[in-house]
Amino acid sequence: MADSRKGISLLGSTGSIGTTALDLIARFENRFRVVALAAGRRIDDLKQQIEQFAPDVVSVADPRDAAELARALGPRAPRVVSGDEGLVAVATAPGTDVVLAGLVGALGLAPTLAAIDAGFDVALANKEVMVVAGELVRRRAARSGARLLPVDSEHNAVFQALQGRREADVRRVVLTASGGPFRTMPAAELAAVTPEQALRHPTWEMGAKITIDSATLMNKGLEVIEARWLFDIEPSDIGVVVHPQSIVHALVEYRDGTVISVMALPDMTIPVGFALAYPDVLDLGYLPRLDLATTGTLTFEEPDLGRFPCLGLAFDALNAGGAMPAVLNAANEVAVGRFLAREIRFGDIPRIIQSAMQAYRAAPRIDCESVAELLAADAWARDHAAAFETRLQAARA
Amino acid sequence: MADSRKGISLLGSTGSIGTTALDLIARFENRFRVVALAAGRRIDDLKQQIEQFAPDVVSVADPRDAAELARALGPRAPRVVSGDEGLVAVATAPGTDVVLAGLVGALGLAPTLAAIDAGFDVALANKEVMVVAGELVRRRAARSGARLLPVDSEHNAVFQALQGRREADVRRVVLTASGGPFRTMPAAELAAVTPEQALRHPTWEMGAKITIDSATLMNKGLEVIEARWLFDIEPSDIGVVVHPQSIVHALVEYRDGTVISVMALPDMTIPVGFALAYPDVLDLGYLPRLDLATTGTLTFEEPDLGRFPCLGLAFDALNAGGAMPAVLNAANEVAVGRFLAREIRFGDIPRIIQSAMQAYRAAPRIDCESVAELLAADAWARDHAAAFETRLQAARA
Repeated sequence: MADSRKGISLLGSTGSIGTTALDLIARFENRFRVVALAAGRRIDDLKQQIEQFAPDVVSVADPRDAAELARALGPRAPRVVSGDEGLVAVATAPGTDVVLAGLVGALGLAPTLAAIDAGFDVALANKEVMVVAGELVRRRAARSGARLLPVDSEHNAVFQALQGRREADVRRVVLTASGGPFRTMPAAELAAVTPEQALRHPTWEMGAKITIDSATLMNKGLEVIEARWLFDIEPSDIGVVVHPQSIVHALVEYRDGTVISVMALPDMTIPVGFALAYPDVLDLGYLPRLDLATTGTLTFEEPDLGRFPCLGLAFDALNAGGAMPAVLNAANEVAVGRFLAREIRFGDIPRIIQSAMQAYRAAPRIDCESVAELLAADAWARDHAAAFETRLQAARA
Repeated sequence: MADSRKGISLLGSTGSIGTTALDLIARFENRFRVVALAAGRRIDDLKQQIEQFAPDVVSVADPRDAAELARALGPRAPRVVSGDEGLVAVATAPGTDVVLAGLVGALGLAPTLAAIDAGFDVALANKEVMVVAGELVRRRAARSGARLLPVDSEHNAVFQALQGRREADVRRVVLTASGGPFRTMPAAELAAVTPEQALRHPTWEMGAKITIDSATLMNKGLEVIEARWLFDIEPSDIGVVVHPQSIVHALVEYRDGTVISVMALPDMTIPVGFALAYPDVLDLGYLPRLDLATTGTLTFEEPDLGRFPCLGLAFDALNAGGAMPAVLNAANEVAVGRFLAREIRFGDIPRIIQSAMQAYRAAPRIDCESVAELLAADAWARDHAAAFETRLQAARA
């Protein structure tokens, strides 16, 4: 008898999204089966996952780890692969129905595109894929028929608010932002905040990079870019509203004035489960339930683009088009890395990004018709941002 | 060439819902045409509507008004009918696609059922239809294939939150209530409020009956009963939350913990337009737009069943089943009428309803398999409520 369970392959199986997905798969084992797993360097975690889920293919970053793993697992080992080709092998493993794109960074672009080209649905948590190559990804998905199922809570909310609706009836999409830890901090103090201050996020527990992005509102800016391509919405029809309680994840306004909003307690289990099970809906009765009478109050305010220029830069990049979002994203990654390493100030992050964007506007344009070209723009921006940052430091020394 | 416009017939064309609908029809005249109009006694208003919309059939309450109207309109007059048969003629007029059921009270039941049996979609604003005969109406609509398109803002919101979803995935439906003008009033003061105090509704402008129902929360109770049959949801899966801003109209919680909420500025144009145009969505760009950052704060709290017993009585009636909701509704109509006439106190309203429900429990049960039986229960409850109220007054004299 054929296995009727949905085959899931995970890119980034030992990360936060990957483990959330595997917890769900374990709980709903009569509904899902793991086809392939790609991890990076957390080999011990991966070994446990292999034992528990018995995938057909596993991939690790380093070929030496792959060889050792294959040896250690012995004759009952899955096929073990590594590196960039390893990621693609996992993303295209036979028997897959949904690929969970849970990697961080532009690294995930090639395997995600491979999954799309194979016609597999993609549960997309790897936001750089859409930020760097959104238009390309959208086109390729339309060609192969692969569905893009957003895992980010905001995009998942937009996706849900669009269910059963016609695109032509949408007037505006609004993403909510918690506002980060510095929502109410005066501009003068903001310039001097430390990485420790920035890493205290009010509602979501996340990695350091995304937590800083949340403090600068760049995270929301990247999500705006992602939304533009996931839902084919004009930049002018995308809005952001600050909502500190993080209960409403997004709103879609229709042309008759109706606004559909999607709420949930902030728990990634919900959007991950939605994307994996779509169009079914999992019974997650074991999770705490949202009770608005207990929540009591939901507040909304305009984002302050003066104090949080990164959000405005993201809209600028989107309006500029081409590879500019890739430039924004790469420069931001460099800047955040340097901020976390205490080499620059919080207020320098937007300066570095802006400098890269200005220089890219003046530079001979790199086209964005291929992944290689987009990744070249990404690399160009990283170099520029690093050099600018060095000049910044020299000027201050 | 056949007229491709949607044919609309209106029950209650001179009332608040009817005129809202006709304003929309006038604005979208290339999309809708008026097939038939039923008014009551506002003959001058109806004359204007006939001139503007040129319906095929019109109906008035009184046969003498009908005769006079036919004479006055002369040879170019539409077919003019009257009384209960007139309502049915409007509800079943050939060329109709959607019947707007905009009457108030049990009067609307027979023509609404006639429209349903004719297979016409029904834009339902006449809540007594579902309160008195919800199960019957649901069954008949299932048989004929007529769609029930709710116009009440809360039910319209639920309907929208269910679009593109599976019934089996719904965990709970929550209707919001503004809480009425006495939301924060202590119980001791509540007993003695006047009709004038009760008629000041915080957010919606409505008729006197429904405004009192909003002050007692009976309006929400009736809506709970309506929701039970419109959406086939168990009473235990229907909740009410008090939300004074009246921006969120309803919430549907899915079994994965996601809550879809439907928001809009409080303006009946939106749900009326939704129901008439369904599945299309009208571009109502001329209306003010909801902007949550301007709204700022949305609050939610549990309804206080101690101070507002009518809501609890409605749940009791729903759980009792059969004709009990009809009894509740009829007794409430009597009680509210007497309160508006200053014959009883605000606090007597639930007492009269409770007495009717208790007596009906003890009385030889009237079955509810037919409209006649339901209307008999309705009449029984009116008699009982009136008699009880007379005893109440006598005891106080």
